[in-house]
Amino acid sequence: MEKQFTHIDEDRVHMVDVSEKDDVPRLARARGEIVLSEETIRKIKAGNVEKGNVLATARVAAVLAVKKTPEIIPMCHLIPITGVDVDFEIGNWTIAAVVEVRTVGKTGVEMEALTGVSAALLTIWDMVKSVEKDESGNYPNTSIRNIRVLEKHKGKHFVTIHPTENESIDVDFDVTDKPDY
Amino acid sequence: MEKQFTHIDEDRVHMVDVSEKDDVPRLARARGEIVLSEETIRKIKAGNVEKGNVLATARVAAVLAVKKTPEIIPMCHLIPITGVDVDFEIGNWTIAAVVEVRTVGKTGVEMEALTGVSAALLTIWDMVKSVEKDESGNYPNTSIRNIRVLEKHKGKHFVTIHPTENESIDVDFDVTDKPDY
Amino acid sequence: MEKQFTHIDEDRVHMVDVSEKDDVPRLARARGEIVLSEETIRKIKAGNVEKGNVLATARVAAVLAVKKTPEIIPMCHLIPITGVDVDFEIGNWTIAAVVEVRTVGKTGVEMEALTGVSAALLTIWDMVKSVEKDESGNYPNTSIRNIRVLEKHKGKHFVTIHPTENESIDVDFDVTDKPDY
Amino acid sequence: MEKQFTHIDEDRVHMVDVSEKDDVPRLARARGEIVLSEETIRKIKAGNVEKGNVLATARVAAVLAVKKTPEIIPMCHLIPITGVDVDFEIGNWTIAAVVEVRTVGKTGVEMEALTGVSAALLTIWDMVKSVEKDESGNYPNTSIRNIRVLEKHKGKHFVTIHPTENESIDVDFDVTDKPDY
Amino acid sequence: MEKQFTHIDEDRVHMVDVSEKDDVPRLARARGEIVLSEETIRKIKAGNVEKGNVLATARVAAVLAVKKTPEIIPMCHLIPITGVDVDFEIGNWTIAAVVEVRTVGKTGVEMEALTGVSAALLTIWDMVKSVEKDESGNYPNTSIRNIRVLEKHKGKHFVTIHPTENESIDVDFDVTDKPDY
Amino acid sequence: MEKQFTHIDEDRVHMVDVSEKDDVPRLARARGEIVLSEETIRKIKAGNVEKGNVLATARVAAVLAVKKTPEIIPMCHLIPITGVDVDFEIGNWTIAAVVEVRTVGKTGVEMEALTGVSAALLTIWDMVKSVEKDESGNYPNTSIRNIRVLEKHKGKHFVTIHPTENESIDVDFDVTDKPDY
Repeated sequence: MEKQFTHIDEDRVHMVDVSEKDDVPRLARARGEIVLSEETIRKIKAGNVEKGNVLATARVAAVLAVKKTPEIIPMCHLIPITGVDVDFEIGNWTIAAVVEVRTVGKTGVEMEALTGVSAALLTIWDMVKSVEKDESGNYPNTSIRNIRVLEKHKGKHFVTIHPTENESIDVDFDVTDKPDY
Repeated sequence: MEKQFTHIDEDRVHMVDVSEKDDVPRLARARGEIVLSEETIRKIKAGNVEKGNVLATARVAAVLAVKKTPEIIPMCHLIPITGVDVDFEIGNWTIAAVVEVRTVGKTGVEMEALTGVSAALLTIWDMVKSVEKDESGNYPNTSIRNIRVLEKHKGKHFVTIHPTENESIDVDFDVTDKPDY
Repeated sequence: MEKQFTHIDEDRVHMVDVSEKDDVPRLARARGEIVLSEETIRKIKAGNVEKGNVLATARVAAVLAVKKTPEIIPMCHLIPITGVDVDFEIGNWTIAAVVEVRTVGKTGVEMEALTGVSAALLTIWDMVKSVEKDESGNYPNTSIRNIRVLEKHKGKHFVTIHPTENESIDVDFDVTDKPDY
Repeated sequence: MEKQFTHIDEDRVHMVDVSEKDDVPRLARARGEIVLSEETIRKIKAGNVEKGNVLATARVAAVLAVKKTPEIIPMCHLIPITGVDVDFEIGNWTIAAVVEVRTVGKTGVEMEALTGVSAALLTIWDMVKSVEKDESGNYPNTSIRNIRVLEKHKGKHFVTIHPTENESIDVDFDVTDKPDY
Repeated sequence: MEKQFTHIDEDRVHMVDVSEKDDVPRLARARGEIVLSEETIRKIKAGNVEKGNVLATARVAAVLAVKKTPEIIPMCHLIPITGVDVDFEIGNWTIAAVVEVRTVGKTGVEMEALTGVSAALLTIWDMVKSVEKDESGNYPNTSIRNIRVLEKHKGKHFVTIHPTENESIDVDFDVTDKPDY
Repeated sequence: MEKQFTHIDEDRVHMVDVSEKDDVPRLARARGEIVLSEETIRKIKAGNVEKGNVLATARVAAVLAVKKTPEIIPMCHLIPITGVDVDFEIGNWTIAAVVEVRTVGKTGVEMEALTGVSAALLTIWDMVKSVEKDESGNYPNTSIRNIRVLEKHKGKHFVTIHPTENESIDVDFDVTDKPDY
């Protein structure tokens, strides 16, 4: 059977009815990267404090954006989020944000995790823009890329494998950013 | 002289003081892509109506997100946005969103344009997720990539070159998504 | 026994305590009309695309407003909305918006449906205001009217009778769509 | 010349560019009515306190909704509102809300005034719903109607004619407050 | 065993996972005071109507802020609030706000009650600022103080002891505002 | 002449009309304290990282709340905030938050500064609540106190005296929290 867009019902966008779905534990983890200049990365790595400032602000932005998802993505349901974790991985040219969202609800939380990742990366951009800008005020190097859902689970119980304890998580997704079909 | 993070003043994150900057016309355009399955792209291209539905919803989401930027990115100023245009380019594996934001204000609107692009792409993802998901509910192909600022201007007067009239705009940015430093 | 205003308890406005009410499926449908000039209606009917644009934007506005109801109506509870449908009926002088809201919650969702209808009609007004305005910038013909709750149900299970499949729903309310000025 | 929908530019909804418009004083006044049962009106008239409660809550809701207009109506600009007045007229079967909005800005504030009126009337409905509902939980009499823009002005200076000092303002709209069903 | 900050997990702020906690009835009551000039208190006491205006506005602000808590306090969960009561006590130099919040949820609602109290007191300040200000526009006397959690309960059932029926509630907290360590 | 409540005009709450006021630079600084247990203060002082986490989160909350003031305090105008600084002073039993807000606008920003202080202190409370709670889940020691406007200025130009460079700022306000009339 062919798949259909569930948000579109005979020509009308709607919020899909999930009334009959069960309230079960659900988890989604998403990840994305911001590409930055070496100078910015060096500055962030240099000082514990500055790093704290940029990433702490991005972390708060991510948690708030997870909760604000139904305002940002019009057809998303308001889901009672029960937990959010945000982690960062600092590479040579990139900072990656990983956001894990949990709920006990009627529908998955991958859009919430993706929204959290986007807000974290946008906030990093905003915090470092004075260093990333060239003389014309433009951004020759800066970009956001590779925003993906890493995993999604549902069930009666689930074990939270914490991002920081699992360094190889996104290897499979990160080899190339070209889609493989 | 070495560049500094303007949002961080001796260890404290703050909202940069722009009181003394002039209210001048400013414009920023940003662009990003969502990578989708061929089936999704085909469905979106097939029907005028469905296409209208997915992209019309994403367009509204982008305009609302542009206005909501100071809530999503913590250190952003509340800027009186005077105009927003959102356009889409449908490729074989991607849909690109281009958002142009204008203001007459004290600081640039690139974060607003980037936030609009992010909201548009997240909304497309949400609208097509029933087709993109595999049997386990995961997204093997879907990703958001290549979010960049295309251009930024300020001045007393500026000419609005409209996205749809300028098909070659983002060629330079799109050849590769590897940063070239 | 005389009825009392439940939101007013001995001289103090409050949010009524629903802690002891059951989480059951609930549905409400509301409807309202905007009276427009014949020129506006003709333009909307003429082009599939323009119609799509005006009404698609109003539909998204309605879904978002349904979710935002507890911010707009101060004493409303935050109810976990499980589904929203928005439909439009184009008459000769009017466009009607019908919004159906579902939840599994502790209290009814008629205020959510009414708020969705109001947002849809206000958005239509905003989208067509350049055609509706006279030379002085005023609106001699435009008005919003007839906002009502069509039906409200609760129970363990309910059958969703979809607006578009039920053409006679609002006969009583719709005897004429000619405004009486 | 034929009028065009300014929010729709060749098939794309957008936020109209007002960058080149002047910041001038602007005023808009809108009015609408809620039709209620005689019992509700009697209760509201009876007690000074209860009247205060219902209408004071609706007044606050209106002012907040005026400020929230660009979130509720997607293509609306964020306008720096400089003043809001909300007044009520209690008839035999209706309560009318009149909202006057002022700004010094680049575009008119009639959508803000209309949104304020809508929020005031929805809030009244919510406050009195325990009295308006019949045994099935439905609303046989309640409706919102006659939402209109009363007047709109712009200029270098304007005289604020205060609603309460000008009893004949809405004569044309108020010939009867009896609903015609 | 030493207590730990639950919102901080090995150097990372996060939203604490409450997935496994039960949905049980919970109640919290908080209280705080605003210190005002005698002239302001006298004016508020003098007229029934003015008192109604200042305090009715503060009451609405409190209820809305209770619902907005997860937006204001970044790591707070979105809890389905089932009831809110706001009461005021007018002293000689102070007005106290008491906010009681109920839920059937997975975590306590003391932050919601405290946020409601804060919003009520800030709104009173805003409403009376023309009287409180000295000639330089400053506030020599005005302050907010003594914001505390009065009580917190959880259980299968709880009896709501209404603030107004229990005049001695906050005696213990009010004797001194010096902390007793 | 007797002072009047400007937000109340003959029995009706309204948003004061500031259309005719000039857009001039304005600054307000407010300060408040949260009283905490010695154990909490010790933990916050102990680790650079934890301190960063609690206070960095409170700082972000304050900046966001400053921008959200017109949503929290109903009659506040939406003012284009041009800068925000948040600082903390850690005492033996207290943490003080100082928030400085700047604008070029038509009305003062003291309510914004006070709202930022309140949000910072509430966020600190939320972050440390696991340590502050006793076995019954209550807070025997925790309170918020002494929220005041430290200074307010307007003019064509102003010198920003930065909180951290001026350690004696609030001596006068802190000797006692009893009002001195």
